[in-house]
Amino acid sequence: MKNLTEEQLYAQLQTLTTNILDLDEEAISQIQVRLDSLTKPQGSLGQLEHLAKQLGGIQRTSNPKIQKKVVLLMAGDHGVVEEGVSAFPQEVTPQMVYNIISGGAAINVLARQAGAEVVCTDVGVAFPLEGNIIHKRVADGTRNMAKGPAMSRHEALQALLVGAEVAEEKIRAGYNLLATGDLGIGNTTPSSAIVALYTKSPLEEVVGRGTGIDDAGLAKKRQAIQDAFNINQPNIHDPLDVLSKVGGLEIAAIAGSILQAAASRVPIVIDGFISTAGALIAAKIAPKSIAFMIPSHGSVEPGHRKALASLGLDPVLNLNMRLGEGTGAAITFYIVESALHILQEMSTFADAGVSEKSQ
Amino acid sequence: MKNLTEEQLYAQLQTLTTNILDLDEEAISQIQVRLDSLTKPQGSLGQLEHLAKQLGGIQRTSNPKIQKKVVLLMAGDHGVVEEGVSAFPQEVTPQMVYNIISGGAAINVLARQAGAEVVCTDVGVAFPLEGNIIHKRVADGTRNMAKGPAMSRHEALQALLVGAEVAEEKIRAGYNLLATGDLGIGNTTPSSAIVALYTKSPLEEVVGRGTGIDDAGLAKKRQAIQDAFNINQPNIHDPLDVLSKVGGLEIAAIAGSILQAAASRVPIVIDGFISTAGALIAAKIAPKSIAFMIPSHGSVEPGHRKALASLGLDPVLNLNMRLGEGTGAAITFYIVESALHILQEMSTFADAGVSEKSQ
Repeated sequence: MKNLTEEQLYAQLQTLTTNILDLDEEAISQIQVRLDSLTKPQGSLGQLEHLAKQLGGIQRTSNPKIQKKVVLLMAGDHGVVEEGVSAFPQEVTPQMVYNIISGGAAINVLARQAGAEVVCTDVGVAFPLEGNIIHKRVADGTRNMAKGPAMSRHEALQALLVGAEVAEEKIRAGYNLLATGDLGIGNTTPSSAIVALYTKSPLEEVVGRGTGIDDAGLAKKRQAIQDAFNINQPNIHDPLDVLSKVGGLEIAAIAGSILQAAASRVPIVIDGFISTAGALIAAKIAPKSIAFMIPSHGSVEPGHRKALASLGLDPVLNLNMRLGEGTGAAITFYIVESALHILQEMSTFADAGVSEKSQ
Repeated sequence: MKNLTEEQLYAQLQTLTTNILDLDEEAISQIQVRLDSLTKPQGSLGQLEHLAKQLGGIQRTSNPKIQKKVVLLMAGDHGVVEEGVSAFPQEVTPQMVYNIISGGAAINVLARQAGAEVVCTDVGVAFPLEGNIIHKRVADGTRNMAKGPAMSRHEALQALLVGAEVAEEKIRAGYNLLATGDLGIGNTTPSSAIVALYTKSPLEEVVGRGTGIDDAGLAKKRQAIQDAFNINQPNIHDPLDVLSKVGGLEIAAIAGSILQAAASRVPIVIDGFISTAGALIAAKIAPKSIAFMIPSHGSVEPGHRKALASLGLDPVLNLNMRLGEGTGAAITFYIVESALHILQEMSTFADAGVSEKSQ
C-alpha cells in the first residue's frame, strides 16, 4: 500500500464508502413483530431490543447470528507527547504492545472472558517492534501537531486503509462482530482535538486528564491543541484534513476499520474516547456508517458522551472507565449476545398462554 | 413461620440485622495495592476496580471468588390493581410464573447466558399455583392499599423472613453471588409509593408507566398512591410500617433476601425499580446492608435513578429496560465476573516490564 499514490488510495476509500448502504428495514420490521410477540411488555427490554433489530438490519435477516468476535486494536505514537501532554513516557506504547502479545493486558483478560480474539496492529508506533502482531506501520509515530500537521494526507489515507484491510481480513475469516481498540501514549490529545472540532466545543469542556495528568499537564495539553488549531487551521468540512492535521495513525486505522465493517455489513462496537474520535472521522467520511456502530461505555473523559451524542449513540455501560484498548467494547460483546439470546429463546404470548396487554 | 407471633418474627429479624457488619477494610486495602500494580493507569477501570474491592471487603479476602450464581425471583400480587393501575390483567402473574417454570421468560434466557440459576418463590400470588417453585405464600396477594393497609405488620414480617430464608438456603448450597428479581402485576405502584416516601419526591416525579399504562391509567396510579398515603399515613421512620401499609409481599421478600445476603456476607445484585424499593426498605432496617448491594441497571421508571442515588448506588448498565424479573441483575453478573478476572489475571508493571507514570 505504501507504493500507491494519494490518488490511488483515495480511489480505494471511495470504493469502500460507496459500498456502505442502509440497514435492511424489512428485516428490522420482521424482528419488531417477533419482539412484540414475546412474553414481556412491548419495548420493555429497551436497548436489547434495539440491538436485536440493528443486527438484523445489518445482516439483512430476521434471525441474525454472531459467529466469531474480535477486538481490532490499533497502536500508534504521537509526536505531540513532546509538549508534555501525557502522564506516561512514550516507551509505554511498545511495552504495552508486548504486554498484549503476552496476554497480560486488561483487553486480553476481558476478551478472553468474552470468548473474543484480540489482534494488535502496529499502524505507527515510534519504536522497533517484533512479535505476534500485524505489522503495517505507516510512520514511526505522528509529528508534533502543535508545530505542524501530525501526518501528510497520504499517510492518513494509508493508515485509514490499513484499518480497513485488517478488518476485511478478519471478516473474510468469519468474524462477524468487531470492536475497535486503541493503544498509544498521548492519544487523548488528538482525540480531544477531533471531538472539539466536530462537537464545536470549547477545549475546557472536552480536554481531560487522559491516563492521569496533573493540572500543569492539563494546561499544556489544552495549549498544545490550541496551538495545533492555530498553526494547522483544520477544515472541518474535510475529514481527511482534520485527521491528517490533528489526528493519529491509530485513530485513522480505527476509522478505516469502521468503514470496512459497514461496507461488509458487520456490526462494530465502538470503545471509548479515542475510538469515538475515529468513529467521528468515519461518520464524516460516510454518514451511513453510523448505523453499523454499536456504542459501548461512557468514558470518564469529559468529551466522550458529547461525542457519542453527536453521533446519536447512547452508551450501554456506565463504568467510569478510561483505559482504552477496547476494554469497554469487549464487555459490550456480552450485551450484544444477550440481545440475540432474547430474540431467539424467549417464548411468545401464544406459546406460553400469557394474556396480552388489556388497555 | 406462619405459626410464629409477631414478636417472635421481629426477634428473628433483629438477629438477622445484628449480624450485618462492615466490609473488611484490610482486604479492600490489599486489593487496592494489587489493582495499582496492574498494567493500567491507576483507577482507570473505574467500577470494575470498585467491584473487585467490594467483593473482597464482603468476602474478607484479597482474592474473592464467585462459585455459583442465582436470581431470587419473588412473586406476589397487589390488591391495588382494582384501582386500574396496570396495563396487564392480574392473571398474568401466575401465567408468568408458569412461563418462568418452563424456561421461556426473559430472566430464564439471561440467567442461562450468565450461567446462573433462577428460583421463583410464591410469596403472595393471588391465584392457585403448583409446580417447580418455592411455595411460601404468606397471603393471596396484598389488600388494596388505596383503601387501607396492604398487609398487616405480621404479614410484612413473614414475607421479609421468607426472603431471608430462601436466600439462606441458597447460600448454604454454595451460591455466593445473588440477585434480586420481582414478578407481580401492579408492583410498580407500591414501589413508587416507597420511593416517593424515602426520596421525599412529589408523585409526578417518581410514578411512571410501569408495563405501559396510558395517561388515564397513570392518573389513576398517582391517585391510588395519594389515597394510600392519605388513608394509611405511613411513618417513614418505621420501615415495617411503610412496607406493610404501602408495600408488597414480594417487595418485603426482596428486602429480606438482601438482609440475609448482607448477614451472610454475600454480595447481592439489585435489579430494577421494584428491587430498589426492596433495597430501600432493607437499607432503612439495616443501613450497613447497603455495602453488600451491587447496582445493576438504570430503569426507564422515572423514580429509579433517584432511588438508587439515595442509596449511593450508581447503575453500571444503561439499557432503558423496564421488565423486572431480575433481567438487569442477571446481565450484571457478567460485569461482576469481569472485575474478578481483572484482579486475578492482569499482569503487573513489574512482571510485564512496563514503565510507570512519570509525573
